[in-house]
Amino acid sequence: MARTRLTPEREHELYTAVLDLLGEVGYEALTMDAVAARTRSSKATLYRQWGSKAELVVRALRNDKPVHLAEIDTGTLRGDFLAVLGRSDDCRMEKNSALLRGLSHAVHDNPDLFQALRELLIEPEMTGLQLLLERAVERGEVRPDNPALSYVPHMMIGAFAARELIDERPVDRAFLLDYAESVVFPALGV
Amino acid sequence: MARTRLTPEREHELYTAVLDLLGEVGYEALTMDAVAARTRSSKATLYRQWGSKAELVVRALRNDKPVHLAEIDTGTLRGDFLAVLGRSDDCRMEKNSALLRGLSHAVHDNPDLFQALRELLIEPEMTGLQLLLERAVERGEVRPDNPALSYVPHMMIGAFAARELIDERPVDRAFLLDYAESVVFPALGV
Repeated sequence: MARTRLTPEREHELYTAVLDLLGEVGYEALTMDAVAARTRSSKATLYRQWGSKAELVVRALRNDKPVHLAEIDTGTLRGDFLAVLGRSDDCRMEKNSALLRGLSHAVHDNPDLFQALRELLIEPEMTGLQLLLERAVERGEVRPDNPALSYVPHMMIGAFAARELIDERPVDRAFLLDYAESVVFPALGV
Repeated sequence: MARTRLTPEREHELYTAVLDLLGEVGYEALTMDAVAARTRSSKATLYRQWGSKAELVVRALRNDKPVHLAEIDTGTLRGDFLAVLGRSDDCRMEKNSALLRGLSHAVHDNPDLFQALRELLIEPEMTGLQLLLERAVERGEVRPDNPALSYVPHMMIGAFAARELIDERPVDRAFLLDYAESVVFPALGV
């Protein structure tokens, strides 16, 4: 049987339905049957295309990201950071962090979800961030031996994790910008 | 009926048993019956003394902390930080972060646990950190208008949250010290 490729439009439609369902019922209760029914597709097609629920969910999240770090190259580190924020919007950011928060609990009981998140979301973004920082070093914006270079992910993850725990407010662009200006750029000596 | 006070030794014994049980079975499966059996006490005593499972567990965690930030005052910010690390040890740190990681999932389904964690652990430590930073400002170590002052919790939570997610290694003293020297002190201008 020839493997039919989905059109990008159809793929996007499927991903949107998956994220809607994920927001409605959570990862544990999300079934391939429900995705198939909601999107009028067959379960066989879903499994042929994505292999597993974990991969389908993570690819849907990845598809929804407004920007991938590796694509950003404005010529300055501050410009790159602003470009990332410029392509996001607060409403989507809040919705996505609610979804990721839910998934971070589901990961506990679903090692395949953790692996899919690592391979398809976390590692590509870490590589993108690495390239972006390497260019800042090459331009002379950041000293090559600045020890904060390896801790940029830690600083950023702290912004997201602590925002709700301590401040009890969702992450938004104004907060991330202030955090970058107050913490990330000073630590990098920019 | 007169309320019997527990001796500090007996209280410590109870707390230790609670943390052992928590590590063995997790928060959801931990019952007051099991605590009563393990500690040869009555459930009535446990409820009279702690009110709820959430409070008992959080007070046990608090009892196990080697140091409370509010008690630290060495005369310099770096000295205070080293004093916190000096009273911890890597083995206990690893055990406690495993327990807290488990609780962070349980919090999802147990709002009373979240509230107990906030009131008995997070808020007192935030207040302690605030005092420690205020003294650093009064001594002239940190400028009063340094914008990173309000983000120290975010930086520290990032160190813990990202260490496992990105580095896939437990937090230890050497890592926290390097993180403080690379990120926290530079951002604070120390």
